[in-house]
Amino acid sequence: MAKTNPGRFFEDYSVGETIHHAVPRTVSGGERALYHALYPARHALYSSDAFAQGCGLPAAPIDDMAAFHVVFGKTVPDISLNALANLGYAEGRWLKPVWPGDTLRSTSDVIGVKQNSNGKSGVVWVRTKGVNQHGEVVLEYVRWAMVRKFDLDAPAPETVIQELKPVLEASDLVVPEGLDFTGYDFTLAGEPHRWGDYEVGEVIDHVDGVTVEEAEHMMATRLWQNTAKVHFDASLREGGKRLIYGGHVISMARALSFNGLANAQIVAGLNGGAHANPCFAGDTIKAWSEVLDKAETGVPGVGAIRLRLVATKGGEPFTLKGEDGKYLPHVMLDLDYWALMPM
Amino acid sequence: MAKTNPGRFFEDYSVGETIHHAVPRTVSGGERALYHALYPARHALYSSDAFAQGCGLPAAPIDDMAAFHVVFGKTVPDISLNALANLGYAEGRWLKPVWPGDTLRSTSDVIGVKQNSNGKSGVVWVRTKGVNQHGEVVLEYVRWAMVRKFDLDAPAPETVIQELKPVLEASDLVVPEGLDFTGYDFTLAGEPHRWGDYEVGEVIDHVDGVTVEEAEHMMATRLWQNTAKVHFDASLREGGKRLIYGGHVISMARALSFNGLANAQIVAGLNGGAHANPCFAGDTIKAWSEVLDKAETGVPGVGAIRLRLVATKGGEPFTLKGEDGKYLPHVMLDLDYWALMPM
Amino acid sequence: MAKTNPGRFFEDYSVGETIHHAVPRTVSGGERALYHALYPARHALYSSDAFAQGCGLPAAPIDDMAAFHVVFGKTVPDISLNALANLGYAEGRWLKPVWPGDTLRSTSDVIGVKQNSNGKSGVVWVRTKGVNQHGEVVLEYVRWAMVRKFDLDAPAPETVIQELKPVLEASDLVVPEGLDFTGYDFTLAGEPHRWGDYEVGEVIDHVDGVTVEEAEHMMATRLWQNTAKVHFDASLREGGKRLIYGGHVISMARALSFNGLANAQIVAGLNGGAHANPCFAGDTIKAWSEVLDKAETGVPGVGAIRLRLVATKGGEPFTLKGEDGKYLPHVMLDLDYWALMPM
Repeated sequence: MAKTNPGRFFEDYSVGETIHHAVPRTVSGGERALYHALYPARHALYSSDAFAQGCGLPAAPIDDMAAFHVVFGKTVPDISLNALANLGYAEGRWLKPVWPGDTLRSTSDVIGVKQNSNGKSGVVWVRTKGVNQHGEVVLEYVRWAMVRKFDLDAPAPETVIQELKPVLEASDLVVPEGLDFTGYDFTLAGEPHRWGDYEVGEVIDHVDGVTVEEAEHMMATRLWQNTAKVHFDASLREGGKRLIYGGHVISMARALSFNGLANAQIVAGLNGGAHANPCFAGDTIKAWSEVLDKAETGVPGVGAIRLRLVATKGGEPFTLKGEDGKYLPHVMLDLDYWALMPM
Repeated sequence: MAKTNPGRFFEDYSVGETIHHAVPRTVSGGERALYHALYPARHALYSSDAFAQGCGLPAAPIDDMAAFHVVFGKTVPDISLNALANLGYAEGRWLKPVWPGDTLRSTSDVIGVKQNSNGKSGVVWVRTKGVNQHGEVVLEYVRWAMVRKFDLDAPAPETVIQELKPVLEASDLVVPEGLDFTGYDFTLAGEPHRWGDYEVGEVIDHVDGVTVEEAEHMMATRLWQNTAKVHFDASLREGGKRLIYGGHVISMARALSFNGLANAQIVAGLNGGAHANPCFAGDTIKAWSEVLDKAETGVPGVGAIRLRLVATKGGEPFTLKGEDGKYLPHVMLDLDYWALMPM
Repeated sequence: MAKTNPGRFFEDYSVGETIHHAVPRTVSGGERALYHALYPARHALYSSDAFAQGCGLPAAPIDDMAAFHVVFGKTVPDISLNALANLGYAEGRWLKPVWPGDTLRSTSDVIGVKQNSNGKSGVVWVRTKGVNQHGEVVLEYVRWAMVRKFDLDAPAPETVIQELKPVLEASDLVVPEGLDFTGYDFTLAGEPHRWGDYEVGEVIDHVDGVTVEEAEHMMATRLWQNTAKVHFDASLREGGKRLIYGGHVISMARALSFNGLANAQIVAGLNGGAHANPCFAGDTIKAWSEVLDKAETGVPGVGAIRLRLVATKGGEPFTLKGEDGKYLPHVMLDLDYWALMPM
């Protein structure tokens, strides 16, 4: 009997099934320090207990994207091992802060399947939940991936496609319990711009660039216990460059966006995202943002801002797609998310 | 008076002497996070406080191999600085879990010496103990190394060779106090295979590979405060590649062995090990295991499994030695250890 | 309105102004572990809670140089973005240990300005203070930098140059509260040499070398939230090598100096320092020290030793400047500091 994990194939997913992913994970100040060593993260709420306490929280939470990576990483052995492509995200919501000492595990509900017309693969939709040691869901998101069939003779399942919101509404977002921006210190946060200072349609070039190294992205990807071998094994690809985990690009771009969006403190919703082109060691990641929308949250003083975050390697800022509607080759990430900031 | 440490030479060791190694070390969640960033470690007992508590422990201990590295690292300035070769390990036992907050120090009893016939070097055997802040021995092992003489005119000491067990018996192994696999969650642990599912002689290809980088192995080796300069100074070796600490290969292989041995949670005994060939940055480490033996531990539900763990760079899995009885060039590590797993 | 930080220009500094730097930072065991992974740091007081408790402290503090980097890093967006050169340090004093759990922020008082005769730039002197969550100053230092003017028509400010001590006196140094070397364990500390064993004029070659990698210095520099883009963006410089943060060289050299100065436990004063030549990935850093002075501290058993710490890449130890009085090309750092050690 083979003991190693072959991963799941398209025919192994059934709508309605819940997959309990393995290897729960306790996070600590160690993960926080590593996150700050791996990314130029400077949002004050995640950097300083004292600042977080000034905003009504008991301490600085673990970075929202770090929480996402931990939850996502656990799904890889069950979802991604035989995936041909990670196609999209939707309805991502951060529901509870993750604190040092918390233990996270992940589950995924299979909510949709559609076999491709070639009969060799299909698309699987899962709703993944990150759960803490109290059984509370700390975040959830839908993602869909194209997965290979192993048994090409397996019958095509009934197509199930669940309707997904193209964009979360502000009322879908959860403001962390106790969050209070009344005494928000814009000087310590690093920029004076509040929610009211941003306009829909405004674009921001985040200016700074980071050239990425193999050692860094591998350490990050391992920290999230993401086991996809393309990120680690240079012998799999001509030229020896490993394919960098798309989440590494997300975190790098989000951290770079501090410069111009220092007060977009909290990532509260993920509307969608595309890993437009791959990232390799040696690429210099830069980022720009566009304000897509603004909304009130219902919590006094806390505004929601919907942002497009684009990560690039070379190319001009604010360029995204060619005349053919396809992403330009220098665009690596096009992410659509909601952040919370002081009004 | 020269202030720097010249290291000890063969003539400086006396059987019966105890060497107290310097620089005690407190470990925390930081070391745990770094271990997970440097190695694809996924054994649940070391990843999750909640999982460990479900197994009767107060929290997730520091990885057994991390504890070994901390203890080993302290011995380097006293044992390895003038060593020509690290020849072997025996009688390694993990006696107490190491918890975040613990402070470790190391001592080594010199238990054997034998001058080589060339008169220029000799073999030194030491029994090293790692001791925590309560004075409890947390692990111990014997290792022997070939060490240069400084004063070639120093008389050869009386040869003392202590008999060492070629293999620990299961009754030598210590099961952590309180360990209880009654409620063991195989789903969260990542694999369904229990002790009873493995057969002596069975071999497992752990499939995944990791290409190693200079920055990673240096960070790991420094984290254990191992000061051997060959690991850090590129100018010492033609081509500028640093010799990677053998323990880095051990930890990488052990972590990779999760895929097929996810429930071999605890490293309890080290029977022996050979660093068969050196590892350099750019090598892609893969691993395979062979079940050498199985035994009961006396603790209900906790089985012991004796494993050969082989780390390779290239080459076919399950190949080890040539017709001449020598390790094949792609074999870097041949380790013989006991692990504890749910029966 | 541009939202990104353009940095300050020479004309933006006024003597008497206090700049409150952004992004406070809580440090933990994570930062401690990373410091030990990035540098071969072995001073026992910072490695072991038990050792620190044996010296009268409640626990092991965060390394003094790590505290310096955290405080310094915060000043970069306000002081260094348009700096042409970092010219010097003076009157640096460590006033309180930094403990895991502490939150640090930084302020800088502008204490001097002098426009250059070319009218295009000027020198700015600031006294920077690191402040913990209790409002206590944990360290302070003066540094001066040459900063570009943006508006060349801005009038030259009145020149103000404050007199700075070329060297701190021993009475300026602060011995950490409770420090007691009565029961100091020289064996655990790693070397037998006490304060009385060092002579003014003595030089020590620290022997070991470390070849630095891009991934390492970027992780370190990010950990301190230092945002200067020259450290991260390979596209800014021909050949793609990033300029390594001078503080990385300081920490590497200080850690290497353990070998010969293991008991120079505490960095208490910074008299001055020059980053003589740049450091790039691939350079092998070595270090040597010279005893410049010795003094009593007033605290029984605690001696002060003034050291020159020189970091080199290649070249002979103990060589510093050429006949022209300029630093030799292999000298990267010339640092003048006071350390505390057992008498």
